[in-house]
Amino acid sequence: MSLESMEDLLVHELKDLYSAEKQILKALPKMAKKASHPDLKQAFQKHIDQTENQVQRIETIFESLNGKPRGVKCVGMEGLIEEGREMMEESMPDYLLDAALIGAAQRVEHYEIAAYGTARSFAEKLGLDEAVRLLQETLDEESETDELLTSIAQRVNSQAKAEA
Amino acid sequence: MSLESMEDLLVHELKDLYSAEKQILKALPKMAKKASHPDLKQAFQKHIDQTENQVQRIETIFESLNGKPRGVKCVGMEGLIEEGREMMEESMPDYLLDAALIGAAQRVEHYEIAAYGTARSFAEKLGLDEAVRLLQETLDEESETDELLTSIAQRVNSQAKAEA
Repeated sequence: MSLESMEDLLVHELKDLYSAEKQILKALPKMAKKASHPDLKQAFQKHIDQTENQVQRIETIFESLNGKPRGVKCVGMEGLIEEGREMMEESMPDYLLDAALIGAAQRVEHYEIAAYGTARSFAEKLGLDEAVRLLQETLDEESETDELLTSIAQRVNSQAKAEA
Repeated sequence: MSLESMEDLLVHELKDLYSAEKQILKALPKMAKKASHPDLKQAFQKHIDQTENQVQRIETIFESLNGKPRGVKCVGMEGLIEEGREMMEESMPDYLLDAALIGAAQRVEHYEIAAYGTARSFAEKLGLDEAVRLLQETLDEESETDELLTSIAQRVNSQAKAEA
């Protein structure tokens, strides 16, 4: 692969994100199943729908660029999901597993915050207004999900302390 | 491994971060060497010193917990660094490589923001005030580095646009 312009780099970033979102879509149902706190279970389930929309937004951007979103494997997300999978296999009480799941999910959210932020700044420089709007929508959702997870963590960790 | 308490989970998080920081320390000189924009080169070089301090902070926390920071391999950081390494091997003009390096570095920073945030919230719940203080110091540095990279990205991307 040869990258010659900022548009090439944007396309590469978006393919990386497309692969990342597809991997997240596979992981989220397992995380929702493992979660015990009802708020956490619900947050993971809600994020499945959000992620499907985010995948569609990337597809919409590719249509406008006359390209296809496939062809790059997001190795970064692969590592994050593998790390989360290893954690889910550890033996621990439910309330600790919830705290660990939140930690894993916030790593995933922050990957997306960094990567969507990068893609949006490339799209801005290229004057691709509609792409900027779509990427910003997703970026806002990821930040909101991260904040939601922080507030659920406070509830879960209080429970952990009470039961310790 | 069996995790039975929030302290066990904090220790696991800190070992993960220790491994992450050690991997970053190996990657940063290569990133500094590949960077072209003097501000970016300098930012990576400065972050080497910061990372060494961050490693020491983790060691200090382990001393207070009478433990050792080794024994966990951070698979998440491994994936992020592998992704950055693949990007550095692509053929592209210097100003695009700078933009790509910033994207890779911000993924790393955001991993740390998520992971240090998780560790700090566990330490808070456990009432480990000195650990909270040390983790917050690192967390602030990671956020500042992320903001610095965003501001350098604006300069690099403007150059990219001018040269495109």
